[in-house]
Amino acid sequence: MKTEIIAVGSELLTPDFQDTNSLFLTTGLNGIGLGVSFKTVVGDDECDLARVFRTALGRSRLILCMGGLGPTEDDRTRETLAKVLGLNLVFRKDILARIRERFRRRGMDMPPSNCKQCYVIEGAEVLDNPNGTAPGLWLAAARHRIALLPGPPREIRPMFENHVLPRLAANGTGLMVRREIRLTGLGESSMESLMKPVYAAVPAGISVTTLASPGDLSIHLTYRGAAPRAAAETSLDGLEKKIREALSPWIYSLNGDNLEAVVGSLLKEKGKTVACAESCTGGLLGHRLTGVPGSSAYFLESAVVYSNAAKTRRLGVPKALLEKHGAVSAAAARAMAVGVRKTSRSDIGLSVTGIAGPDGGTTRKPVGLVYIALAHAKGTAVTRNHFFGGRAQVKAQSSQKALDILRKFLIKGT
Amino acid sequence: MKTEIIAVGSELLTPDFQDTNSLFLTTGLNGIGLGVSFKTVVGDDECDLARVFRTALGRSRLILCMGGLGPTEDDRTRETLAKVLGLNLVFRKDILARIRERFRRRGMDMPPSNCKQCYVIEGAEVLDNPNGTAPGLWLAAARHRIALLPGPPREIRPMFENHVLPRLAANGTGLMVRREIRLTGLGESSMESLMKPVYAAVPAGISVTTLASPGDLSIHLTYRGAAPRAAAETSLDGLEKKIREALSPWIYSLNGDNLEAVVGSLLKEKGKTVACAESCTGGLLGHRLTGVPGSSAYFLESAVVYSNAAKTRRLGVPKALLEKHGAVSAAAARAMAVGVRKTSRSDIGLSVTGIAGPDGGTTRKPVGLVYIALAHAKGTAVTRNHFFGGRAQVKAQSSQKALDILRKFLIKGT
Repeated sequence: MKTEIIAVGSELLTPDFQDTNSLFLTTGLNGIGLGVSFKTVVGDDECDLARVFRTALGRSRLILCMGGLGPTEDDRTRETLAKVLGLNLVFRKDILARIRERFRRRGMDMPPSNCKQCYVIEGAEVLDNPNGTAPGLWLAAARHRIALLPGPPREIRPMFENHVLPRLAANGTGLMVRREIRLTGLGESSMESLMKPVYAAVPAGISVTTLASPGDLSIHLTYRGAAPRAAAETSLDGLEKKIREALSPWIYSLNGDNLEAVVGSLLKEKGKTVACAESCTGGLLGHRLTGVPGSSAYFLESAVVYSNAAKTRRLGVPKALLEKHGAVSAAAARAMAVGVRKTSRSDIGLSVTGIAGPDGGTTRKPVGLVYIALAHAKGTAVTRNHFFGGRAQVKAQSSQKALDILRKFLIKGT
Repeated sequence: MKTEIIAVGSELLTPDFQDTNSLFLTTGLNGIGLGVSFKTVVGDDECDLARVFRTALGRSRLILCMGGLGPTEDDRTRETLAKVLGLNLVFRKDILARIRERFRRRGMDMPPSNCKQCYVIEGAEVLDNPNGTAPGLWLAAARHRIALLPGPPREIRPMFENHVLPRLAANGTGLMVRREIRLTGLGESSMESLMKPVYAAVPAGISVTTLASPGDLSIHLTYRGAAPRAAAETSLDGLEKKIREALSPWIYSLNGDNLEAVVGSLLKEKGKTVACAESCTGGLLGHRLTGVPGSSAYFLESAVVYSNAAKTRRLGVPKALLEKHGAVSAAAARAMAVGVRKTSRSDIGLSVTGIAGPDGGTTRKPVGLVYIALAHAKGTAVTRNHFFGGRAQVKAQSSQKALDILRKFLIKGT
């Protein structure tokens, strides 16, 4: 059963607003084994809206439409769907009484414009809206099921959960199980090449999609079908094993956790503390590490030593070293990691120094050149990296690489 | 000319991801007087995608499609559109050379999977992609214009601006002028109340929309019509003046700049340097300040002193003070700001200490309690704040408030 979500409202076609209800609806639908095949946004134009309904009726069996049920001139969802289906609108006195009562409780008279909310498409069930005047509608025709719901999140959420989901779950539509594997340190194309044998052996009922952002990749596995949960999980386990065999050096999470959460768990597990020395990341590394609840158990501090004077004063990086090698150098990264470990008395010191751009690059030291060092009780390791993209991307990839270096060090258990 | 934006990608049909490129595309289209009539999201299913293309060709004259141009199995946009249009794909050696060269510069061989990116729909122009391997395509048929663009924001943005917009602007369709006013320190409902008189006097042709996120508000003014640019600007000036009269204490930007950019300009203008001492923001304050190109001119460092030991060792916050008042206290915030100013030799010291949650709150010191202090040559000011929301929201609002305190201090010119 193909499912389509339609969001109605001219404001959703401006640069300032975005449909977010569909994310919530999708969570609920996935929970009962339904995926979404199409999402459409259309304005308050009756002709455009009629086209969208006709298209949806042609390609989808379940249609969830939100918005355009209000009392104003440009709310035309109810009327338009009735026209497209060739059905009449019926005036419902019980809805009028309910809306009047709602206004009365607030000490107001019902404005005449709300009368239009009392019309219902013939044959539709009315879905009660405890948080607003617009009732919802549920139409179960021969081939289609259609829900019309209001747009405001606080109105649509309880209506979807209390009225729409139970109606859909009643004719059990199967099972959906999702998993997310996350990777770093690998390009998208290389991942695809390594995934070739995996793609060739995806079990029935499972779909595999991949997603890439600078420094981060994820593989989403989705089982959808009528199998019992245990069988679906076994099937996913098998596929996950194949992916691990192909990509293990780059996989950091099998449950969708982000890299800072994975690193945090490892630090806790190993009983180690960390302190950072950041130059080009400017605090992003500390921000990410402290984004994890409970991070005070292992994160001591980050010295965001942007100026050379701060590198020297806070971490004891020799002035002569900075003059000889520059602040963006393997020597500086090493001295920063060692310095922050020593001055903070942490088990591990992690440093980043580089050129985030857009200015400050030279031929020998181009924008995107970033040194990362990790100092521990038995030594210090430095890597030289060259990241591409703008300032924000260089910062993001630098923090990602630094966290991954920390992760690998913790796993090795040195 | 009806315009449709199509976003391709199965991940965009999950609860975890959302198309945001369309907002940026809409801004650009609006700038040349074009509105958007339909937005569609579809997964990596060739059959669904073909349906979506057929629908779009039937109802829209301009079609902007993004995503599905990558090297992977499930990238099928190019192939599907060719099929729907009944056109052939042509292999282009010049694209192959360009992609190979891109990999070579990074010291890698091109994986074979990238070969599919060298195919072009016959009759289409190739749009260069400086930030990725996937070239874009531009098809100008008799009735339609179609752009195929890659999905990653950093790839699609320059391609849209440099290749698509100029092609569209060539047949200009009217005038659209937008302005963005940004505010902080005010709730959304309070802003709405204060805006009442403004709403009552909006000139013809201008629309006003507002947008709220934790700690940040923006008001968008959009002129759309056939007036000459000078008349539209005058009309917008008048409206902007009314908004400034109603809301000036909270406005920090009249040109859409973010708060860290505004603060950066003020620091430069006044010739002042700043250093931060961060506890609960964990580096976010430094990260934001260093997100502005050229920030090394005024940002010296941030001491992310998460542990009490770091507060004492780095900034000289007395151990006894922390024991008596706690790390989340006005006294600690004050000592941190004074301490970082002194030890970094900056003109201004800015500190944040609070409870980001979800744990660590008590009745006397609840989650969301945050002290912010600013130390300067003539004294120190501390504020007590209570922010609502989860860990990320508390961190975001704390950094926003700290930057706004710094902004106000710089404006006063003390």
